[in-house]
Amino acid sequence: MPRRELAWPRGLEGRLCFGGDYNPEQWPERVWVEDVMLMRDAGVNLVTVGVFSWSRLEPREGEFDFEWLDKVLDMLASAGVKANLATPTASPPPWFSFAHPDALPVTREGVRHVHGSRDTFCPSAPAYRQAAVRIASELGRRYADHPALAMWHVHNEYGTWCFCDHVAAAFSSWLQRRYGTLDRLNEAWTTSFWSQSYGDWSHILPPRSTQYVPNPSQLLDFRRFLSDELLARFIEQRDVLRELTPDVPITTNYVLGAWAPANLWAWSQEVDLVSVDHYPGDARPLVTEQETAFVADLARGLGGGRPWLLMEQAPHHITARGYSLPKEPGRMTRLSLSHVARGSRGVMFFQWRASRGGAEQHHSAMVPHAGPASRAFKEVAALGAVLGKIAEADAGTVEAHVALVWDPESWWALRQPGMPAPDLDYDAVARAVHAALWRAGATADIVHPRADLTSYRLVLVPPLYVAADDALANLASYVDRGGVLAAWYLSGSVDLENRIRPGGYAGGLRELLGVRVEEIHPLPGDATVTLTTGETGHRWSELVRAESARVVSKYAAGVLAGQPAITANARGAGSAWYVSTQLDEGGLDRLVRRLVAESGGEPSSSPGLELVRRRSVGADWLFALNHTDADWSVAASGTDLIGGGRVEGLLRVAPGSFGVVREG
Amino acid sequence: MPRRELAWPRGLEGRLCFGGDYNPEQWPERVWVEDVMLMRDAGVNLVTVGVFSWSRLEPREGEFDFEWLDKVLDMLASAGVKANLATPTASPPPWFSFAHPDALPVTREGVRHVHGSRDTFCPSAPAYRQAAVRIASELGRRYADHPALAMWHVHNEYGTWCFCDHVAAAFSSWLQRRYGTLDRLNEAWTTSFWSQSYGDWSHILPPRSTQYVPNPSQLLDFRRFLSDELLARFIEQRDVLRELTPDVPITTNYVLGAWAPANLWAWSQEVDLVSVDHYPGDARPLVTEQETAFVADLARGLGGGRPWLLMEQAPHHITARGYSLPKEPGRMTRLSLSHVARGSRGVMFFQWRASRGGAEQHHSAMVPHAGPASRAFKEVAALGAVLGKIAEADAGTVEAHVALVWDPESWWALRQPGMPAPDLDYDAVARAVHAALWRAGATADIVHPRADLTSYRLVLVPPLYVAADDALANLASYVDRGGVLAAWYLSGSVDLENRIRPGGYAGGLRELLGVRVEEIHPLPGDATVTLTTGETGHRWSELVRAESARVVSKYAAGVLAGQPAITANARGAGSAWYVSTQLDEGGLDRLVRRLVAESGGEPSSSPGLELVRRRSVGADWLFALNHTDADWSVAASGTDLIGGGRVEGLLRVAPGSFGVVREG
Amino acid sequence: MPRRELAWPRGLEGRLCFGGDYNPEQWPERVWVEDVMLMRDAGVNLVTVGVFSWSRLEPREGEFDFEWLDKVLDMLASAGVKANLATPTASPPPWFSFAHPDALPVTREGVRHVHGSRDTFCPSAPAYRQAAVRIASELGRRYADHPALAMWHVHNEYGTWCFCDHVAAAFSSWLQRRYGTLDRLNEAWTTSFWSQSYGDWSHILPPRSTQYVPNPSQLLDFRRFLSDELLARFIEQRDVLRELTPDVPITTNYVLGAWAPANLWAWSQEVDLVSVDHYPGDARPLVTEQETAFVADLARGLGGGRPWLLMEQAPHHITARGYSLPKEPGRMTRLSLSHVARGSRGVMFFQWRASRGGAEQHHSAMVPHAGPASRAFKEVAALGAVLGKIAEADAGTVEAHVALVWDPESWWALRQPGMPAPDLDYDAVARAVHAALWRAGATADIVHPRADLTSYRLVLVPPLYVAADDALANLASYVDRGGVLAAWYLSGSVDLENRIRPGGYAGGLRELLGVRVEEIHPLPGDATVTLTTGETGHRWSELVRAESARVVSKYAAGVLAGQPAITANARGAGSAWYVSTQLDEGGLDRLVRRLVAESGGEPSSSPGLELVRRRSVGADWLFALNHTDADWSVAASGTDLIGGGRVEGLLRVAPGSFGVVREG
Repeated sequence: MPRRELAWPRGLEGRLCFGGDYNPEQWPERVWVEDVMLMRDAGVNLVTVGVFSWSRLEPREGEFDFEWLDKVLDMLASAGVKANLATPTASPPPWFSFAHPDALPVTREGVRHVHGSRDTFCPSAPAYRQAAVRIASELGRRYADHPALAMWHVHNEYGTWCFCDHVAAAFSSWLQRRYGTLDRLNEAWTTSFWSQSYGDWSHILPPRSTQYVPNPSQLLDFRRFLSDELLARFIEQRDVLRELTPDVPITTNYVLGAWAPANLWAWSQEVDLVSVDHYPGDARPLVTEQETAFVADLARGLGGGRPWLLMEQAPHHITARGYSLPKEPGRMTRLSLSHVARGSRGVMFFQWRASRGGAEQHHSAMVPHAGPASRAFKEVAALGAVLGKIAEADAGTVEAHVALVWDPESWWALRQPGMPAPDLDYDAVARAVHAALWRAGATADIVHPRADLTSYRLVLVPPLYVAADDALANLASYVDRGGVLAAWYLSGSVDLENRIRPGGYAGGLRELLGVRVEEIHPLPGDATVTLTTGETGHRWSELVRAESARVVSKYAAGVLAGQPAITANARGAGSAWYVSTQLDEGGLDRLVRRLVAESGGEPSSSPGLELVRRRSVGADWLFALNHTDADWSVAASGTDLIGGGRVEGLLRVAPGSFGVVREG
Repeated sequence: MPRRELAWPRGLEGRLCFGGDYNPEQWPERVWVEDVMLMRDAGVNLVTVGVFSWSRLEPREGEFDFEWLDKVLDMLASAGVKANLATPTASPPPWFSFAHPDALPVTREGVRHVHGSRDTFCPSAPAYRQAAVRIASELGRRYADHPALAMWHVHNEYGTWCFCDHVAAAFSSWLQRRYGTLDRLNEAWTTSFWSQSYGDWSHILPPRSTQYVPNPSQLLDFRRFLSDELLARFIEQRDVLRELTPDVPITTNYVLGAWAPANLWAWSQEVDLVSVDHYPGDARPLVTEQETAFVADLARGLGGGRPWLLMEQAPHHITARGYSLPKEPGRMTRLSLSHVARGSRGVMFFQWRASRGGAEQHHSAMVPHAGPASRAFKEVAALGAVLGKIAEADAGTVEAHVALVWDPESWWALRQPGMPAPDLDYDAVARAVHAALWRAGATADIVHPRADLTSYRLVLVPPLYVAADDALANLASYVDRGGVLAAWYLSGSVDLENRIRPGGYAGGLRELLGVRVEEIHPLPGDATVTLTTGETGHRWSELVRAESARVVSKYAAGVLAGQPAITANARGAGSAWYVSTQLDEGGLDRLVRRLVAESGGEPSSSPGLELVRRRSVGADWLFALNHTDADWSVAASGTDLIGGGRVEGLLRVAPGSFGVVREG
Repeated sequence: MPRRELAWPRGLEGRLCFGGDYNPEQWPERVWVEDVMLMRDAGVNLVTVGVFSWSRLEPREGEFDFEWLDKVLDMLASAGVKANLATPTASPPPWFSFAHPDALPVTREGVRHVHGSRDTFCPSAPAYRQAAVRIASELGRRYADHPALAMWHVHNEYGTWCFCDHVAAAFSSWLQRRYGTLDRLNEAWTTSFWSQSYGDWSHILPPRSTQYVPNPSQLLDFRRFLSDELLARFIEQRDVLRELTPDVPITTNYVLGAWAPANLWAWSQEVDLVSVDHYPGDARPLVTEQETAFVADLARGLGGGRPWLLMEQAPHHITARGYSLPKEPGRMTRLSLSHVARGSRGVMFFQWRASRGGAEQHHSAMVPHAGPASRAFKEVAALGAVLGKIAEADAGTVEAHVALVWDPESWWALRQPGMPAPDLDYDAVARAVHAALWRAGATADIVHPRADLTSYRLVLVPPLYVAADDALANLASYVDRGGVLAAWYLSGSVDLENRIRPGGYAGGLRELLGVRVEEIHPLPGDATVTLTTGETGHRWSELVRAESARVVSKYAAGVLAGQPAITANARGAGSAWYVSTQLDEGGLDRLVRRLVAESGGEPSSSPGLELVRRRSVGADWLFALNHTDADWSVAASGTDLIGGGRVEGLLRVAPGSFGVVREG
């Protein structure tokens, strides 16, 4: 269980964190001196230390060398910079591979990876578990009372896959705990198909290389298992550190991405402070901004609305399809402030100083290769000053009247082989819906399917393909009590075991939505379908039979001509909409603005001007970020925390600029 | 040897088979009752049972559980539904992997696949052979006299690759039988190239992962071996079942596809009834229809014109590039009737009821996820009724005056690495030529290169790259006796050992065609070349020297300008054409219509209206399938088996509709 | 050390070599007789024999059979054809795999390749080393005094990768020699990043499959090691043969390609005669011609300007993206003469007679499948005659006033993972710059970064990413003494250990170029940027700060608008230009013509007419090759070696034709 009272890095209470990963072991000590001076210039107050230092800290198994780290931490303490002290367990040293070859990770095809990169360990191997806990304990004991210590940063970006025999045994145990009996497992996995019935727990393997399409329930359960297994590794370290330093918050930085086997809802029950790494994958104007808002809202949502921390981002580049594309001047600042506006307790980067060598020598850094005499470093330092001015806004809670339901298991399941379309992308739909909300100016909370929805005017449900009965009941109950809800195609189609529910696709929501989905009609590649209300659908369409729902829009052509495309079902005090296709951006905007308006909101009329309000008992704060080339003004009165004066009625936000106002 | 007298599933004599794979073990028994009622509603009379039930039938090695299958078969027998009883050997149970790890299949790169899908066995492993024969024997003994038993369905879609040591030993033995001495093998494989001469039979391996381009003769022989090896597995089971039930026909369902290592000409000598699975890969209008006609003509050809059975098709979807695209209303019916018109003794589907879970949970089924109250199921039931009305037409032989030569070994060889173009696609050319015949209204038999061709007016030969001398002599003899033949580029280029024949490309047909092919000029990607007669060629062109042939069309541009593109050689009483490029669809249509007309046929004037005639001593039957949006009429007089009345002179076939007329 | 006095194949002094790989073991002896007659017809005087004959020469380990080769060599000697006698060590026989499984090559993922192709050996395996030296010794002893023996051809296209334990041990030893101490290695490889510090030499592995991005210094060092390791294999054989036949030159044919782990600068110190294989990958008009000039200039450069030999090319096809595209009539001849003009001591092909079977049965040959009665063979024979007429030109040295710096290590490093753009292609830029020189009519020498540059007017430096300090100093010194130099983006960015140099990108050339590169701005895919002088840049752009340089052209749009794109820095007596983007072809042409003109040259005014001059004390020779459809004339007076007459003032070169004139 997270401890809510530990959500501030110790010693930084009331301040926004600012800094990044600091790897002084890559540099001679004379550079350290310059580092500290530059950190001071830039307003850095927190750095992550030691995150990949295992081979330096334990050069031979069981032999530790902490002297250099003592020196680093002492230096930081003297300079007033706090340490987010990491356990280095994401990358075991070369000696580990030789001492424990069985603890190296093995691919689906049986290839055993060796050291030479990072993450070369099997999360289930006893030798790895022991070695990880040992180094964490050593660090905990040595630095428990160090004045620089502000937070523990366990591991780095948990997300290692392995299919070895240790994992097989752990998976089998996990399944025994989940299903109890083989009969239940065989039923859940539909092993009667293709002669896969298990008569022995030991016969169940990870989804290793097989001859043809694998079992979809096995695939989904393996991801669940792996998330739990990695989380157990976090908890092992956390418990050691908590015992040693009960007052120091403990976090681990989440990595986001379809490949990562982590159900972050479960993880967020275990960390003291949610922290996320954010590396957007698209640099187009406004697209990165929308991604940023999504990730920030997600991070806040994972912690149930509590503060969180942006632990890593690249200062100056966005890596898109392998290209390191520079952020335009001012963009890094606005993107960082978007995170803060949406609840981040600071702005952290990977990394402080650009490496000369190593795998990420071309990763951008706060101090770039060109050195501090650069436009890039100047923008970093200026951001540090801005954060100092706006820290008070952290006291406010982000205001949101809309909720977006987010479910990683549906994401995983829709990407599996054997689906009726190879490009079903839950994440893309969820982000598209969130982006439409962003363009409509509606700040959204991102919530779990079983979250309490009572406070929201509008709930949007991207394809919630996998859903437990109680999650579906939660949605129905929200509508019954007067809520407006819109669910996208395939929601409610399968149960937790990835078995199709009876009654047509979306069968689990048939009653709530008032429709029966008789057939699915995927739209391959660039194929589109037109709706009678003018929108274009792509990727997906369906033969929907309206039962109790009214038809909002119909398909206009093709074999589905005249059949419902979008429906709305009055139910209880509320209404439940169904969207059976993936709308083009304009169509999605129209639909979302209509839903926002129907649920009592007011869609934005200043596109590209991002407005987020933080509310507290004492005061409200308005963040206004102008991501466009246009001049915008926004109604606001109060204290201009950036400019320093007073705003009366209208805050002007110049192109590319931003403002933060304490209202009232 | 097949037994011609066993070509009817027992108990269904005189009726067309209708049904599909039935997997009741996936459902609780209460569903079985609904199944039987729905089967009756739909006119189902035959279901394939037990095809993937090994782990259910033999839950532990040597322990059998037949009770559930007894119950299923009894229930079917009571309901008058016959069983096509399968041996489950395509998917060994998980216990098999653990008991016999050496019997799991190994990839070219040495990866040993595990259970978790289907086909996880090595076809040469002794343990697999024993286990497969054992379960087949058990089934044979238990159900030999069961009243439901109509046919044996051995295995499912034989097509498993393996490169393990068991396979290596079997391959070496096969090569010893084929070549006798190492000297002959070294000569046949040209092992003098790249220092590959073998001095020991045990040194010959399957074409496992090697450093660079592999030996083309080894590759081709390995596919031949694998086809024979899998066929031997079929024969092992067949002989056991034949011994136990001499009066029950035995089949195995063929899978079509470039990956499948099966030379179906050889297989068709061993089954009692040819049966094929047909999953088209292209859903475009008329394209699926042309594919269907090709596959049906091929299935009929494989059995030498005997009846055959469409054992599997997807009822409601066509899977194209991973997308499950719905068949438009009526299309499933017309495609099914095309199979019947072309000789299928019925219409079978995979599968009866859509699975809730398992790898193919999204595969379409006769009873879809939406249940029987659906457009899809209604069309299935209506088809059942139609089949009841037209069964008498099965007595007729399909009328065809054209033959298309089909050779899987040329298909395989042209796809191998090291060819002068990476996209030589025998199958695509063969299907394109067949489609042009379809559009010309000329029903074709698909025949073996050594088939008796005397009854045909026209013989078309897609790139018969690999050919034995006697096959080439067979073609020449056909022309000598007055036939019209057209051969496509690269025909006759290599011998059975995949060695280039002397005398230029197409060297083995140089005399017959009257041309010498001096150079090959592949056309990469979208490159095209124009002919003087207006056609466009793509993929391929050649420097052809006309020796005795006359030039029908020349290349119009490029370095080949003025050189022959299409030639015709008068020879004996007939003529032999040569087509040195891949013509565009319009050009191919013109050529094929011309050839049809020159050989005494009359090309169709109702595009998209598929007409097939079945002839018998007593009566003829005309199938007319309108795949278009146009109204078509066709000259016919007789009894309308669908509408029930009489047709006098003209049968009107409405858009999307069909008719079957007993003529006379 | 190469022996300059051995640069003529023995017995061919004063003649140009003409012939190809001759593999008589693929044919019955009656074909040998025809071969020799045809060789005489074509003017063949040198053939490479035995290059892949190991399994024929040593059918069982330690048992040799030379009789057939005796016969072949005797026959050649009788016919006056010389032998370039190969050691067959590029392809061990099948028995080798079984006797020494540990000597088979292993992939990065651990897959052990087997025989069935070529190059199936580990270069570090003791068993391979012993077997290779043994067969080379046997050949050397047997044929040392054979009259046919003209040259030794060791191995074939050295370029085999392996990641096995033998390689691991050899790599570790190589690293110990390179770095001396682990501390130095850890420093050089920046192992402090991602916890990779080594405490034991035995823990250092080849860059095998690992979890994520590998270490860039390890990758680069591994390629260096592999080049040295393969070169050591060459030297082992060379030393044996040199001992036995001190008067016979020894070569090995280089393969060009990004995959080949050979630093040819080092190799060229060890061969007596540089020989290269040239298989262009693009058949477009003039593109192949430009590729040919590049490769020929490179081959000449590798030997420091000495003669070299084109050892292999395909006679009649260019394989582009897997398609064998025919060379248009006359093109083979012009391409061959381009090689000769640029210093090749002859024209050799792979191979003499097209194989009937084997992996390269579709590779084109001097005698094609269609036989000698073919356009293709006639062109071969005509080329043989031409070479007889122009042999005297070999006495001249190729005249070049421009040098292009070429560095394979930069090529390798820029292709590694982890770079800021995934498509950084050193080779493409180097070839584009060379092609612009070709179009400008400026013959270029290709030189090592540390070469003596004093004789050149202009030095062009494609992205010299990896560079030692002394190489950078060499460039600076050239400029200081009055040279004109232009360097492309990223030059001087990293040191020999692949660590980024301080001071911004291109930091190692900051002073010479007078610029500081503050940021990199890759241009993904088709993105472009416009320059104020009208050119278009693609792939790459940068934020360049001019320090002492003047700005030649600026970026015209985007975030870099107004910033320098091309600069020139006056320094010492010369000037140093910097090009921060990849210019379009027209833009590059303008820049290169300007640089040629500024450095005292005169750009060509006859596009597509290739002119190369060879100078000697006694005479000069002018080669003129017209690769276009236009009629060109060139100023020349002297003896027309082709036509036989005298040229006075103007040599006319018809479309597609060529001339060679002894000037004076």
